Amino acid sequence: MTPAPFDRVVLGDLVLPDAVLPGGWVAVRGEVIAGLGQGVPPPAEDIADHSGKLVLPGLVDGHMHTSSSTGWAGIEGASMSAAAGGVTTCVDMPYDVPRPVTDAGIFREKVAVVEATSHVDMALYGTITKEGGVDAIAGLAEAGACSFKLSTYEYDAVRFPRIDHPTMLAAFREIAKTGLMCAIHNEDQELVLRLTAEAKAAGRCDPIMHARTRPPLAESMADLEIFEMALETGCHVHIAHSSIARGFELAEVFRRSGARTSGEACIQYLCMTEEDLVRLEGFGKCNPPFRTAAEVERMWTALEAGKIAYVSTDHAPWPRERKLYRGDIFAPGAGLTGLQSFAPLFYTLLAERGLPPTLMALYGAERPARFHGLFPKKGAIRVGCDADLMVLERGDFTFDARDIRDREDARWSPYDGRAMKARVAATYLRGTCIWDGRDVLAKPGTGRFVPRQHRDTHLGGA
Amino acid sequence: MTPAPFDRVVLGDLVLPDAVLPGGWVAVRGEVIAGLGQGVPPPAEDIADHSGKLVLPGLVDGHMHTSSSTGWAGIEGASMSAAAGGVTTCVDMPYDVPRPVTDAGIFREKVAVVEATSHVDMALYGTITKEGGVDAIAGLAEAGACSFKLSTYEYDAVRFPRIDHPTMLAAFREIAKTGLMCAIHNEDQELVLRLTAEAKAAGRCDPIMHARTRPPLAESMADLEIFEMALETGCHVHIAHSSIARGFELAEVFRRSGARTSGEACIQYLCMTEEDLVRLEGFGKCNPPFRTAAEVERMWTALEAGKIAYVSTDHAPWPRERKLYRGDIFAPGAGLTGLQSFAPLFYTLLAERGLPPTLMALYGAERPARFHGLFPKKGAIRVGCDADLMVLERGDFTFDARDIRDREDARWSPYDGRAMKARVAATYLRGTCIWDGRDVLAKPGTGRFVPRQHRDTHLGGA
Amino acid sequence: MTPAPFDRVVLGDLVLPDAVLPGGWVAVRGEVIAGLGQGVPPPAEDIADHSGKLVLPGLVDGHMHTSSSTGWAGIEGASMSAAAGGVTTCVDMPYDVPRPVTDAGIFREKVAVVEATSHVDMALYGTITKEGGVDAIAGLAEAGACSFKLSTYEYDAVRFPRIDHPTMLAAFREIAKTGLMCAIHNEDQELVLRLTAEAKAAGRCDPIMHARTRPPLAESMADLEIFEMALETGCHVHIAHSSIARGFELAEVFRRSGARTSGEACIQYLCMTEEDLVRLEGFGKCNPPFRTAAEVERMWTALEAGKIAYVSTDHAPWPRERKLYRGDIFAPGAGLTGLQSFAPLFYTLLAERGLPPTLMALYGAERPARFHGLFPKKGAIRVGCDADLMVLERGDFTFDARDIRDREDARWSPYDGRAMKARVAATYLRGTCIWDGRDVLAKPGTGRFVPRQHRDTHLGGA
Amino acid sequence: MTPAPFDRVVLGDLVLPDAVLPGGWVAVRGEVIAGLGQGVPPPAEDIADHSGKLVLPGLVDGHMHTSSSTGWAGIEGASMSAAAGGVTTCVDMPYDVPRPVTDAGIFREKVAVVEATSHVDMALYGTITKEGGVDAIAGLAEAGACSFKLSTYEYDAVRFPRIDHPTMLAAFREIAKTGLMCAIHNEDQELVLRLTAEAKAAGRCDPIMHARTRPPLAESMADLEIFEMALETGCHVHIAHSSIARGFELAEVFRRSGARTSGEACIQYLCMTEEDLVRLEGFGKCNPPFRTAAEVERMWTALEAGKIAYVSTDHAPWPRERKLYRGDIFAPGAGLTGLQSFAPLFYTLLAERGLPPTLMALYGAERPARFHGLFPKKGAIRVGCDADLMVLERGDFTFDARDIRDREDARWSPYDGRAMKARVAATYLRGTCIWDGRDVLAKPGTGRFVPRQHRDTHLGGA
Repeated sequence: MTPAPFDRVVLGDLVLPDAVLPGGWVAVRGEVIAGLGQGVPPPAEDIADHSGKLVLPGLVDGHMHTSSSTGWAGIEGASMSAAAGGVTTCVDMPYDVPRPVTDAGIFREKVAVVEATSHVDMALYGTITKEGGVDAIAGLAEAGACSFKLSTYEYDAVRFPRIDHPTMLAAFREIAKTGLMCAIHNEDQELVLRLTAEAKAAGRCDPIMHARTRPPLAESMADLEIFEMALETGCHVHIAHSSIARGFELAEVFRRSGARTSGEACIQYLCMTEEDLVRLEGFGKCNPPFRTAAEVERMWTALEAGKIAYVSTDHAPWPRERKLYRGDIFAPGAGLTGLQSFAPLFYTLLAERGLPPTLMALYGAERPARFHGLFPKKGAIRVGCDADLMVLERGDFTFDARDIRDREDARWSPYDGRAMKARVAATYLRGTCIWDGRDVLAKPGTGRFVPRQHRDTHLGGA
Repeated sequence: MTPAPFDRVVLGDLVLPDAVLPGGWVAVRGEVIAGLGQGVPPPAEDIADHSGKLVLPGLVDGHMHTSSSTGWAGIEGASMSAAAGGVTTCVDMPYDVPRPVTDAGIFREKVAVVEATSHVDMALYGTITKEGGVDAIAGLAEAGACSFKLSTYEYDAVRFPRIDHPTMLAAFREIAKTGLMCAIHNEDQELVLRLTAEAKAAGRCDPIMHARTRPPLAESMADLEIFEMALETGCHVHIAHSSIARGFELAEVFRRSGARTSGEACIQYLCMTEEDLVRLEGFGKCNPPFRTAAEVERMWTALEAGKIAYVSTDHAPWPRERKLYRGDIFAPGAGLTGLQSFAPLFYTLLAERGLPPTLMALYGAERPARFHGLFPKKGAIRVGCDADLMVLERGDFTFDARDIRDREDARWSPYDGRAMKARVAATYLRGTCIWDGRDVLAKPGTGRFVPRQHRDTHLGGA
Repeated sequence: MTPAPFDRVVLGDLVLPDAVLPGGWVAVRGEVIAGLGQGVPPPAEDIADHSGKLVLPGLVDGHMHTSSSTGWAGIEGASMSAAAGGVTTCVDMPYDVPRPVTDAGIFREKVAVVEATSHVDMALYGTITKEGGVDAIAGLAEAGACSFKLSTYEYDAVRFPRIDHPTMLAAFREIAKTGLMCAIHNEDQELVLRLTAEAKAAGRCDPIMHARTRPPLAESMADLEIFEMALETGCHVHIAHSSIARGFELAEVFRRSGARTSGEACIQYLCMTEEDLVRLEGFGKCNPPFRTAAEVERMWTALEAGKIAYVSTDHAPWPRERKLYRGDIFAPGAGLTGLQSFAPLFYTLLAERGLPPTLMALYGAERPARFHGLFPKKGAIRVGCDADLMVLERGDFTFDARDIRDREDARWSPYDGRAMKARVAATYLRGTCIWDGRDVLAKPGTGRFVPRQHRDTHLGGA
Repeated sequence: MTPAPFDRVVLGDLVLPDAVLPGGWVAVRGEVIAGLGQGVPPPAEDIADHSGKLVLPGLVDGHMHTSSSTGWAGIEGASMSAAAGGVTTCVDMPYDVPRPVTDAGIFREKVAVVEATSHVDMALYGTITKEGGVDAIAGLAEAGACSFKLSTYEYDAVRFPRIDHPTMLAAFREIAKTGLMCAIHNEDQELVLRLTAEAKAAGRCDPIMHARTRPPLAESMADLEIFEMALETGCHVHIAHSSIARGFELAEVFRRSGARTSGEACIQYLCMTEEDLVRLEGFGKCNPPFRTAAEVERMWTALEAGKIAYVSTDHAPWPRERKLYRGDIFAPGAGLTGLQSFAPLFYTLLAERGLPPTLMALYGAERPARFHGLFPKKGAIRVGCDADLMVLERGDFTFDARDIRDREDARWSPYDGRAMKARVAATYLRGTCIWDGRDVLAKPGTGRFVPRQHRDTHLGGA
């Protein structure tokens, strides 16, 4: 008997970046999508029938932190919640404790930990040390870093340092040679430190002061500095997260002048406001902070106009204890969990605005994969791509933080209790089901490191 | 024994708008693409093996004239050359002799002739009479016209009239209600008539005078007039053919002001120059005329920057006799054959410039289909689309006009003798082979009329 | 005894384009301003004491028609009303009956009539015949024409013909060589004729139909045509009167592209609306027609932003009989009297908006003089300029058309009965008082022809 | 006998911002221009006959430092060289040793010193202390400061501190309330310090390294920061000196976005290049440094296009000893003498480029006076203005630094030995001759403090 030409077919309504194919199928051979179609599927060893549900590409989260608070040990739990959230590729930030990823040696060590412990596939940013460190850039690129990340603001001199202008300029020159993108945490340190000091001196440490001490100007000033250096060096410079529409406008202004500039939004900047910060206290604290409802609208306008590179989570699973507000909003760590809520929330926000789920395939999978040089291996339901799929079941659900599949103290969420219009019913990683809607079936080590696939800069377009 | 899930699989290197899939397959069920993939194909009743060749979507020629010189009888021959040229969908102009397509009744009559005689699928433009005629617009749209075509220049008061400003304004208002696009033949009649009269008076009727009497200004003045009325009415107004890059710039300027404006290039404006006009005499005469080599370069710059709606042929198969130059360049008819040379020429021009064949899938299939509201039924190798395919064999060939599959007196071409880097090895229309590289297998009536699929205006983007 | 160094000093508050000098004086020697100052004046043979009144430069009306309805005989009366209105330099249009100014011979004849009959100084436009006529351009420039005027709309095939595109293009090329400006009457003839015919056919000949049959689009389409030819030829092309702010925007867009384009407003477009047309019937009819109150506001915004070349009257003193509405608004002549009301109205409009009278010195004197190449001889209270002065007495006045100093049947005005905040208390032409607030002291022949002073194009700036 | 109506008439060819009046006269009454004219002058008590020479407005140097190196004692000498150089109004920087002008008390003390020791009139900038100091802004404006000056770069923590972002932001908010302009020394400190440290570490302390360690990017990054804060606060923010055309472009970009931004050039950036730095060593060192010849051309293009606010000297009369290069270009003070060479050099540069001296009246007198709120009291030959005049004798001269009228150790100049096409033959301050071409006739205390005349921001236009 002839063997079936495919190992598995996955049935469902396929969500592509520009269309939905009802009654579709994805045919998997090995770990790869070997075919896709509509109607009666071809024979296969196995049939995964999700008829009536949406089948999207597994999401690519272009910006998250597994190891910022708990070290590389955090990879295991964070990637488990990713699996449960339909995120099949994490692009992990380099700001790890105790050692950030600042040279090829550390990079390779982290790769080994990823391969040993991750539940999903993972690409990795590199970074540089606060002083010097530029020499390590070529080696990091060589080792497979997909992108770089630097900061204009210092959280910690070792883990997350501010890179000063001359060092950043030197780094941009060096990164330009690699062709990779350099994402920047964009806050003007002088403004933030002073406003924070003044707030403290005035005895104002209540939650809203987190937003007041990091005003939009702190972002836009940083944006301008990095973009002028982008224009000078030819480096692709990317705002790691713009909470304001002006960030995307500035990227466009500089692009028109010939610079390679872009910026991304995090999902929280597309829905959360200062009121949420006040309500959530420490659990609503992230940097940049939530803005106004009017700014959220401007962000959506920018997204619909195609001005945003992609949408990410900036997932940062602080231990719950570190997020508690005890009268001083400046004390808790900045960052939110977001991997497991990403897909249901993104779908819900689109549905609430009458927008199609195709935008999720585009901004949550294809475009982040393109910007990080992972496309077409990752980010799409296309022939030849890894068979990374997420199945969304539509309905009325409530996001419950207790269901987060991570270590106990990371089971909190700013979206706890939020009504959702979909849930992740299954996740497939390279053709294998790693989440069946109830349990994470992947094991530590199921995930793999994904090196940069090529070095072409992507600046937009579909 | 289980029946094969597909009727046919077509094997080859699939050329998509943004990638080439080597070793691919397209699975056909009925007339539609039911699947596509790479590697071992699924079982099918039939296998069409074009391994090693390029498989593109059948081309969509958004601008051609089957019946301008010979009436509806011309449909049969022109569509045969389309089949041999890999063009599976013709969007036929309404300027037919003796009766242009100016009302729903005529439209339906033409549809019947198309269904009876065409070798490939065909969508149809509508137009209006020189005076009045605006009232027929709604009926034409209702009857399935995909777009409208009007002219600022008069070739013939009945067949191809100049529509004056007030009538055009009224037409735009009416077309705006239908949501369809209105393409415009854009030449300033006053300028052209005067310059022509002066040339004749001066005894200058040699070939180059065809270009001299229709200067770029004649186009740009017409462009501005129609775009200002587009801005006023909200109608999608489209330059039917811009031989100059300024046309696309003006479309962009008006789009930024909120108008719905666009413009297309014909393939000849991407390669032919005034020198070719002098060389080819009547057989190099078309309107607008060929421009300079520098303008050709500007056209390519516009194309690569995404400013051009799509690329078409403006195919007009004048009887050879009507193209002969006998000392008066103003006597021969204006227009070139182009359907059968379209695919090899487009591929060759791209190859000569080191550009990928994906641009052909984009500008020669997907985008014309989008602008004419035929996408996704037509224009793409995508699941659910009509299984219209063209197979390109790469190699060194010479275009020989004697091979044109049309009536004898239409077997001439401005590209006769040109070196080509590919030839059309096969054409599939809705899953059936209609050209096998030697013979047109389609019969009159194999082709069908394709009505507008929807009424969304497409102004660009992928 | 030493003779006084000056023949006359005129005392008053001097209104310059950017400041008002209270207690000022202007010292005249011969016909020229030989000095100006503040406080105690220098000795002079004569003192004209207007202390407490405003002394402005005599106005330069850059656009008016003395002889369109009554032939050169009209110069005498129109220039008399100019004197009474503080207008010391008229730039007269060439559309004279029975013979427009289409060659140097006619030009010189008209110069002779001006010198024999005008009460104020006069510069002259030239024009061309409907066909041919381009060859006369160099001669007209040589004879001293300050500018040219052509039209896209035909009132009369001889007096005021439409110049078609090829002729206009040829004319622009020729005028470009002279360095002079070419003003264009900008209305799309096809649109206007058709809308008018339709209105008549529908029995709609009531006053508002004059506006409805000449919509803003009729202007903007003409503007685009002439500006594209300006870009092509390098000729300074000027909208003779834009009743819509878009005209000035288009001029700016083309200037940024390198064209030499500009546009002027008439004073009526800064105050009159469609309601005034309905109220005034034939006496409110001019071309382009009055627009909406919202458009008037946009016009002022354009003026304050410096986008308007200058402000003129388009004075056209039709015999009263020819302006009467007898049930058909299409019958009366188009055009308004405006010379005598210009200064009081301009001052009043500025005062009503809280704007300074300096704008009147700028837009009613200096800038028209600059655009027509008459500056600095005309248009300013500056040393070395002709001692042309206008004295404004502020107060509450009412404009009474019966006071117009012209032939009896030209004593009508759309502003009859309007409250004015100033009146012209005196006018000086080259140092001599020609209007003392009651009587015109000038005689026919007091005025002189003023040839173009130089051939530099002025496109804006102070 | 009637007393003469004027105290003095000055005869010569008057250079206005837009014209030259040959054979002109300026009539002075008291300290003010009471009249001006051409030809036979009115009677006056005194006649200063400079017939055949150019009479310009006394220059207004909008940017200079009398007291940066030697304290307020420096005012006396610097103002003497100003008198000899035709500069009648100095706008003195606040970075005085030992105490910068950071509050109203110090301001008033400096005013007293100015009134006691200056040879020419003087307006004064205010500044703030490195920390705090914002509260003093209102008082400084009240005391008559014409403008403010802050720096992004620190020369000295007390005299010339870097103002950090939060303090600058607060200062801009406060200055915005006063309506005054805030000029900024624009260099990115981080870049400059690092590049300097690296150069020193590499043993590269030769002259060209002064330019290499302060690259154009150091300016443009600072420009963007201050302009973004300008946009946020509404403050008029002005680049104190842009050595690169990009500075003016950025000012224009931000103006179009609604910010109040501008920038000035110093005369050295219109002629000196890196080659001059190498040649002059310490005597060619200033900040920003000289750029390339190509950049000088771009600066002139910007000037002719009206994009530059005004032209200044940045005069800084370091003791000669402090400018000597002894193998370390980083050791000498930064700054050039320029007051006495300003007028001859400006005239010469214009003449060498075929540009009229009117540009000197505009950019060297009227516009700086407008930007600093001193116009029309200062900056123009206009009725009612202070009778500040400079007389230029044309011819072939050589600038000789030994002729500088300042303390001995300030008699050096980067222009020493340069061929000049004019010399200052006389200077009049408020009607009195203070320089007769050989001797400074003014005494310490002849000059007066000039307070801000009004608080309107001027952003350009004539």
